[in-house]
Amino acid sequence: MESSEYFVDEALLQRVPKWRNYYAAKLGFRNHWYPVRLSSELGEGQVIAATLCGVELLLKRVDGVVFALRDRCIHRGVKFSDKVECYTRDTITCWYHGFTYRWGDGVLTDILASPSSKAIGKRKVDSYPVEEAKGLIFVYMGDQGATPQPLSEDVPPGFLDDDMVIHSARYDVGSNWRVGAENGFDGLHVYIHRTSPLLASTQRSLPIGHATESGKIFLQEEDGKPKGVLDPFEHHVSLWEGKIGGEVVVKGTKRMTGNNPNRTTGASMWLPGCLRVDNFPDEGLFIYEWYVPETADTHNYVITIGKRLTSEADKAAFEHEFWSRWKPISFEGFNNQDIEARVGLQKFYKDDVAWLDEGLIEGDAPLIAWRELCHRHNRGVQKPEDVR
Amino acid sequence: MESSEYFVDEALLQRVPKWRNYYAAKLGFRNHWYPVRLSSELGEGQVIAATLCGVELLLKRVDGVVFALRDRCIHRGVKFSDKVECYTRDTITCWYHGFTYRWGDGVLTDILASPSSKAIGKRKVDSYPVEEAKGLIFVYMGDQGATPQPLSEDVPPGFLDDDMVIHSARYDVGSNWRVGAENGFDGLHVYIHRTSPLLASTQRSLPIGHATESGKIFLQEEDGKPKGVLDPFEHHVSLWEGKIGGEVVVKGTKRMTGNNPNRTTGASMWLPGCLRVDNFPDEGLFIYEWYVPETADTHNYVITIGKRLTSEADKAAFEHEFWSRWKPISFEGFNNQDIEARVGLQKFYKDDVAWLDEGLIEGDAPLIAWRELCHRHNRGVQKPEDVR
Amino acid sequence: MESSEYFVDEALLQRVPKWRNYYAAKLGFRNHWYPVRLSSELGEGQVIAATLCGVELLLKRVDGVVFALRDRCIHRGVKFSDKVECYTRDTITCWYHGFTYRWGDGVLTDILASPSSKAIGKRKVDSYPVEEAKGLIFVYMGDQGATPQPLSEDVPPGFLDDDMVIHSARYDVGSNWRVGAENGFDGLHVYIHRTSPLLASTQRSLPIGHATESGKIFLQEEDGKPKGVLDPFEHHVSLWEGKIGGEVVVKGTKRMTGNNPNRTTGASMWLPGCLRVDNFPDEGLFIYEWYVPETADTHNYVITIGKRLTSEADKAAFEHEFWSRWKPISFEGFNNQDIEARVGLQKFYKDDVAWLDEGLIEGDAPLIAWRELCHRHNRGVQKPEDVR
Repeated sequence: MESSEYFVDEALLQRVPKWRNYYAAKLGFRNHWYPVRLSSELGEGQVIAATLCGVELLLKRVDGVVFALRDRCIHRGVKFSDKVECYTRDTITCWYHGFTYRWGDGVLTDILASPSSKAIGKRKVDSYPVEEAKGLIFVYMGDQGATPQPLSEDVPPGFLDDDMVIHSARYDVGSNWRVGAENGFDGLHVYIHRTSPLLASTQRSLPIGHATESGKIFLQEEDGKPKGVLDPFEHHVSLWEGKIGGEVVVKGTKRMTGNNPNRTTGASMWLPGCLRVDNFPDEGLFIYEWYVPETADTHNYVITIGKRLTSEADKAAFEHEFWSRWKPISFEGFNNQDIEARVGLQKFYKDDVAWLDEGLIEGDAPLIAWRELCHRHNRGVQKPEDVR
Repeated sequence: MESSEYFVDEALLQRVPKWRNYYAAKLGFRNHWYPVRLSSELGEGQVIAATLCGVELLLKRVDGVVFALRDRCIHRGVKFSDKVECYTRDTITCWYHGFTYRWGDGVLTDILASPSSKAIGKRKVDSYPVEEAKGLIFVYMGDQGATPQPLSEDVPPGFLDDDMVIHSARYDVGSNWRVGAENGFDGLHVYIHRTSPLLASTQRSLPIGHATESGKIFLQEEDGKPKGVLDPFEHHVSLWEGKIGGEVVVKGTKRMTGNNPNRTTGASMWLPGCLRVDNFPDEGLFIYEWYVPETADTHNYVITIGKRLTSEADKAAFEHEFWSRWKPISFEGFNNQDIEARVGLQKFYKDDVAWLDEGLIEGDAPLIAWRELCHRHNRGVQKPEDVR
Repeated sequence: MESSEYFVDEALLQRVPKWRNYYAAKLGFRNHWYPVRLSSELGEGQVIAATLCGVELLLKRVDGVVFALRDRCIHRGVKFSDKVECYTRDTITCWYHGFTYRWGDGVLTDILASPSSKAIGKRKVDSYPVEEAKGLIFVYMGDQGATPQPLSEDVPPGFLDDDMVIHSARYDVGSNWRVGAENGFDGLHVYIHRTSPLLASTQRSLPIGHATESGKIFLQEEDGKPKGVLDPFEHHVSLWEGKIGGEVVVKGTKRMTGNNPNRTTGASMWLPGCLRVDNFPDEGLFIYEWYVPETADTHNYVITIGKRLTSEADKAAFEHEFWSRWKPISFEGFNNQDIEARVGLQKFYKDDVAWLDEGLIEGDAPLIAWRELCHRHNRGVQKPEDVR
C-alpha cells in the first residue's frame, strides 16, 4: 500500500480548520469500534479475511469467541491468508517459514523452521479487540495494548438495548466511507428515492426534499456517551412538489394519518460512522447503518434494521419479515439507490482537492455539523504509519 | 481527475523556451474553437456527452441550436450524465438533489429539493459557446463570460467558404493530441503509407519521403486571421526510392501526368490543431483534420474531406463518393495507418521527459515551426485550475 | 516508463548504509552479464524482444551470432518491434520513417525517407554485447562503448566448465528480482517445499528448516573472480520436525545413506543474481538459476540444471532425463512453489518502505551477507537516466 494515495496533503487540510481531522480521515478514525462482518459469516473454527481502515485483518472463531490479527507476518510481510495454516486451535502458522502466532494476543509462540530463535515469545503481530453484539462482529481499530472504550460509546443510542432485535446485511461499495456517510445523512437526497418500490409497499409518505430549520440540529457531545448529530424531522420543512419556473415537474408521495403524513421521524449520525433513522422503513422500525472504511476507494456498507420486541412469536415474525420484505424491498429497493449515488459522488470526491471545490447550500448544514463533530470527538485519524 | 498527471513539470518546461507553451499544453489550448461532435450525432432534443481539453461536457440541441454545459453539478460534483433529467426543454436537472440549470447560460434556476435556497439565480455551472458549421459542432473552450474570437480565426483558410462542401467522420485515438498533430504534419512519415490501398484506387503518386528545402516553410501570423505553418510541396525534394547501402529496398509510387507526378500539392497546420492537405486524396479535394484534445492520453480525431461545388447534382455525387470511396479507402485505408503510428508514438511521448529525449532531424523542421507558432499565438494553455 | 516508480527515495536509502546499493537496484545492476533468453528461443534470422533491467531490447541471430539493440528508434522513440522491418540481414529499419541501424554496433547507416540527413553515420541506437554459453543468450547491460568484463566473472564457478552439461527453462515471474533472489537463498524457506512431489521421486531428504552456524557463511570476493556468498550445508543445523507448544505438527523427510541423510550439500548466491545449489535435485546435479531484472514488478526466472558428463551416451541420457523428469518434477513441482512464495512476498516488498519494516531473524544472516556483498561489488546501479 503506497501511503501517498491514502493521505491528504497538509496544504489542503489547512484550508478547513473546523473539520480538518475529518478531511484527513480518508481511512477512518483510530481507536473506535467498527462492525466488519456479520456473525453469520464466520462459523466455528473458520478463518476469514476483512479490511478495516486500510489494514488487512484475519478473523477466527474459537469456541464461539472471535479473534482478529493483522493479516501480515512480521518476518517478511507475507499474508497468512495466501494459504491459511492452523495446526492448533488457538494459533496460526505462516505458510512461508512457519512463524506461529497466538490468536488471543498475537504473540509469536513458535517458529517451525527455526525453533531456537530469540524472537519467539518476544515479538508479536498486531492483534485487535473483538466484540460481538446484535449479530455483528465489531473490531476495535486501536493502538496496540490500549484498553478500548466500551462498544456502547461507538454505536447509536438504542442499538444495544435488550429488546432491540436486529437483522442485517452487508454490501461492498465503491466509494470512500465519508462519501457514504454524507449521502446517508443528507436531508435533500431523498429526491433520488421518489421512485423506490418501498413507497408502494409501505403506503407511507416521502417528500422530495426537506431541510432543517436553522438552529434545529442537535449535538450529543456528553462525555462517556456516543457522539452524534441529531436531526429530528418535526422541525423539518418538507417539500412535496418540485417546480421549475413555477411549474410542478416532480411530486413526492404524501399519505395522511389523521393530520400528519405517515413518515420517518428523525435521522442522526454517530461516530465513527453510523446513521440511525427512526420509524423507517416503517413505523416502529429503526435503521442503523455503518459506512465502514476499507480502502481509500471502498467501504463496507453494513445495514441493519431493528425493532423492539420481547415475545418469541413476534421475533419469529420479524425475522420472516426481514427476509421476505425489508431486505429485498428496503435494502435492495431503496438503499441500492444510495449506493448508486455514492458511486457517482466518488468520481468527484476521489480527488482530495474536490472537497474544497464543492458548493454546499443551506440544507447541507447537518453535514457540516457532522464533519465538525468528527473533527472534535474522534479518538485519532488513521495515519500512514498505521497502515504501512 | 488528478491534476498532476495532466501537467508538465516546470523544470522540464524551462528547457524548451521557444515552444514551452506547446509542451505545456497536454490538454490543449484555452480560448479556442474545437469541433467535438458531428452535427449528425446530435438530434433535436437529444443530450450527449463529450470531453474537450480535459473538461467533461454535455451537449443538447434545442430548436436546432446546440448548447454546451460542463457535465458536473456545482453542488456536490456529480455528473448529470450519470442519469440525465430534462424536465423542460431549456433546463437540465441534476438527478441527485434537483439542481436545475438553464442550457443557454448555465444559470441555476431552481433546486427541486430546496426551492428557497439563496443560491438560486446567483450561481451557475460553466457554459461554453457553440457554433455549428459544415456539419461539425464547434465548442469554444473559453474563460467564463469571455467573448469568443470568430470561428473563422480558428479554422484553416477555405474551410468555411460557401462553395466548400464538407463530409466528415470521427475516430477516438489513444494518443495525446500533440502526437496526433505531429504525425499528421510530418513530411517524412509518408513512408508508412506506401502500402495504402488508396494508391491503387486513385492511380496517383506517393513518394516514400519528402523534405522541404531550407527556408521554404511559410508562416501565417497576421492579426485577425488563422495562424498556421504552410509547407507547399512545390519546394519539396521528393524521394521515390529508399536505399540501404546503396541498394533499393523500398519504392514509392510515381505516376506521371505530362512531366509532373500526379500528387498532393501542400500541407499546412493551423491553431488550435487542424491539418489541411491540398489536392488529397485526389485532385480537387482537401483534407481538413482536427486532433481535438480529450484527456492526456486520448484525442478525438475529426477528419473531413472538402470539395468546391455549386450544383446540386455535383453535391449529390460527392456525397455518394464520400460514403462509397473516401471514407472506406482514404479515412480507413490511409488515415488508419496514421492512427497506428500515433499509438506507437504515444508509448514514448506519454512520459513528459521523452519530449526532451527525441532526436529530430532536418526534415522535422516544419514540426519545430509548428511548435513555435503554437507557443507564440495560442490564447492560453489549459491549466490545472481549468480542469479540476 | 515513468522513472519515479522505478527508483527508491534517497531518504529511505540512507537508512541502510551497508546494503544501500542493493536496496536502490530495483532494476538491477549495470555493467553485468545477464541471461535473457534460451538459445533455442532465437532461430537463425529471427528477431525477438526481451526486457532487461527496465530496458526494452530486440535480439537478432545473424549467421549464428546474436546481436542486441535497444528497441527504440532514436528519432521519435517508437519501438521497432511494433512492426519489424529488416530489409538486409545486418540492419533493422524503423517502420515509421525508415531509420536504419546496423545490428552489429547500432550505427544509423541510412534513413530511407531522408537519405541526405547529416545524422547518418554519426548517430546510433544503444547496442549491447551478447555472448552465448551453455544454451543461454547473455546480454551485457553496460555503458555504451565500455569493454565488458569476462562472462566468467558473472556466473557461478563451474557453470562454464567444459564438462558441465546444462539444460534450462525460463519462466516469467510477477515479483521484483531481489525478491526472487532472496527467496531462493533463504535457508528457512525449505519449509514450503515439504509437500513437493520431488521428495517421492528422488527418495532424498528434505528438512523443514536449516540455519547456518554463526560465522559459517563464506564470502568469495577475490578480484577477477565471481563474487558470491557460500553457505555449505555441512555447517547447518537441520530441523526435521516442526513443533508448536512442544507438539510435533509438521515433519520433514529424512532418508539415510549410511549415517548421513541423503541430501543437498550447499547453496551459494552470485552477482548479479544467480543461485547455485549443489547436489540438488539429486546427487551429482547442480542447479544454477538466475533472477533477471525486467521491470520493477517482474523478473525473468532462468532455471538451469547441470551435470558433469563427457560421453555422448551419458549426455543423451541426461537430456532425456531433463525433459521427462527434472523439468516437470523439479522445475514445475518444486521451483513453482518458490514462484508462489515470491508473488506473496511482492505484495509486501513492492512498497519501497517495506524493506525497512521487515523483521529478519538469526536464520536470515545469509540474506544480509548477500545484500552487503551486492552493495560492495556491483559495477553500477541501474538509474533513471539509464532507462528513460
